[in-house]
Amino acid sequence: MNLLAETLRQIEPQDSASRAAAHARLEQLTMPYWALGRILDLAEDLAGMTRSLHPPVARKTVVTMAGDHGVTAEGVSAYPAEVTLQMVHNFVNGGAAINVLARVAGARTVVVDMGVAADLSPLAASGRIVSKRIGSGTRNFAPETALETAPPTAMSREQAIQAVESGIEVARELAANTDLYATGDMGIGNTTPSSAIVAVLSGCPVEQVTGRGTGIGDESFRRKVAVVKRALAVHRPDPNDALDVLAKVGGFEIGGIAGLILGAASLHKPVLVDGFISTAGALLAHRLEPKSADYTIAAHQSQEPGHRIALQRLQKKPLLDLDLRLGEGTGAALAMPLVEAAVRILTEMATFDEASVSKAET
Amino acid sequence: MNLLAETLRQIEPQDSASRAAAHARLEQLTMPYWALGRILDLAEDLAGMTRSLHPPVARKTVVTMAGDHGVTAEGVSAYPAEVTLQMVHNFVNGGAAINVLARVAGARTVVVDMGVAADLSPLAASGRIVSKRIGSGTRNFAPETALETAPPTAMSREQAIQAVESGIEVARELAANTDLYATGDMGIGNTTPSSAIVAVLSGCPVEQVTGRGTGIGDESFRRKVAVVKRALAVHRPDPNDALDVLAKVGGFEIGGIAGLILGAASLHKPVLVDGFISTAGALLAHRLEPKSADYTIAAHQSQEPGHRIALQRLQKKPLLDLDLRLGEGTGAALAMPLVEAAVRILTEMATFDEASVSKAET
Repeated sequence: MNLLAETLRQIEPQDSASRAAAHARLEQLTMPYWALGRILDLAEDLAGMTRSLHPPVARKTVVTMAGDHGVTAEGVSAYPAEVTLQMVHNFVNGGAAINVLARVAGARTVVVDMGVAADLSPLAASGRIVSKRIGSGTRNFAPETALETAPPTAMSREQAIQAVESGIEVARELAANTDLYATGDMGIGNTTPSSAIVAVLSGCPVEQVTGRGTGIGDESFRRKVAVVKRALAVHRPDPNDALDVLAKVGGFEIGGIAGLILGAASLHKPVLVDGFISTAGALLAHRLEPKSADYTIAAHQSQEPGHRIALQRLQKKPLLDLDLRLGEGTGAALAMPLVEAAVRILTEMATFDEASVSKAET
Repeated sequence: MNLLAETLRQIEPQDSASRAAAHARLEQLTMPYWALGRILDLAEDLAGMTRSLHPPVARKTVVTMAGDHGVTAEGVSAYPAEVTLQMVHNFVNGGAAINVLARVAGARTVVVDMGVAADLSPLAASGRIVSKRIGSGTRNFAPETALETAPPTAMSREQAIQAVESGIEVARELAANTDLYATGDMGIGNTTPSSAIVAVLSGCPVEQVTGRGTGIGDESFRRKVAVVKRALAVHRPDPNDALDVLAKVGGFEIGGIAGLILGAASLHKPVLVDGFISTAGALLAHRLEPKSADYTIAAHQSQEPGHRIALQRLQKKPLLDLDLRLGEGTGAALAMPLVEAAVRILTEMATFDEASVSKAET
């Protein structure tokens, strides 16, 4: 808890002087007023985050947090739980979508075992993944009925703290070689805890924040909604206590993502937040310290209905809207060139005076 | 006219066998069904355009077509007309937004003088721009009243043909070093002819397709709408004759963009179409040969209201929506990494079998 408390204390708001200086420069560049729209908003944000008119973003790292979920026993996913492990191997071998998209973006990928239900120690020992495993998958937090007493939570409160602190550690361990972080997730079943988290933290009905995940049919979807409703009715997570929410209905990798965001924010470094699962993590981070949202950039709007609601709570407008629903950090990797573009507009464009271009007639 | 007629004859639809083969491969890649959404649609499109499962897109060229507009005499722009020339110098010196964004995308920029109202022969002689100039800016096509007889058109029909053929020539001249084209424009006043073109070709009222361009106030906006309405009432461009529309109310660079698209399409090469002015050019190309749209990719949704209508007519959904309203090819350059990403997903990702990943349980 010391690391978490210390990190939360270190998170400052964006620097308003740097924002103002960036804004002033952007207004002088050879284009009509704010004619690059959200690219200029982003440039101003990056200046505020990094306290610099030359925001560093060259060294990019996608952190894909992996974990398993006991709640898959309820039949809430289209894929068998062993796919989490299989996909970790796919990441390590460079064949997954996130590997390809990170290469396109010039980013490295770091896979973190937050709690896959398999022994990944050989991969960790050889340095091909980072091990921060909290347990061998979460417990099935779905009670059998809405009246059950003392049903298992996804994890203990201590494990929830450990998951978030592990994410902070990852951010710190990567900081020497990272200017721009991106979050990503892998965990069969993890839209179910994400829906539960978003329902609690947004106050929205479960039906509104639950979607088809990897592509389940109508029957599985009804089951998924029922599982989340029952879990919230029995566990009653405290919406004012992010660690209680994470412990009761969360996931190890979601806690890790929350920690990564808090760690990056404490370092004044920007974080591209991927889709629904990552944004559930960002909501947890925001509940722990609202100023953490000053350092997050919403990469894209996913097809999960709860994602839109989570982004609204964070007051974030996503950069891309490409009907993605994959996770892994893929949407964040696709948005990286826009971040690079924003910085280079700020740093490389000529001003009206430098280029001897006439200004608007007013 | 021979070049134009010959080019139109050469434009074939996308190759359905290549599309089908790409689709089949994309379905086998290690992700839930179509989980990268529009990136996969784009990959399938690129396969259909290029007739290849390894669509070449590495060599990227942004073509920024520049021209002046006699209609600026009506006070329809926030900027003085000499800014077109000043911005050409800015492009050549590498200080404009399109220079920066093309560098980010790994693209080269080619500036084409389609008819700037200034002598650019020194820049053309030194190879820093391509000269295809049709005239020293278009004529002011705005009649003084809606009853005027025989008012000046923007250009002659011969000039309209020459503008389109010049664009085709540019596409052909660049083809040896270009896999992926992007359109761009520079021309103070050119949202006015673009609004006129889109109004004629879409059949929508002028008010619906006219916007604030570089940022004009209410009075200039009312004047701009009135100018376009008067011009259409007097010139009566034939909506079934793209060359008539271009001649009467168009612009040299807009004709050049239409030609560039036709040329790329005839070569089976993809073209990223930038914002409102470029899409007016794409509409002209589509009217000349509807199959040309098989090779265009809508880069972004600009803030100009007529852009949305023009894209609807072309049945194109833009990749980005970032509140841009700059032109130059900036939106197209920002979308280039998405095109690269689509190709590399198709060519670099592992299949379920290759990666030994379990498929969905159905």
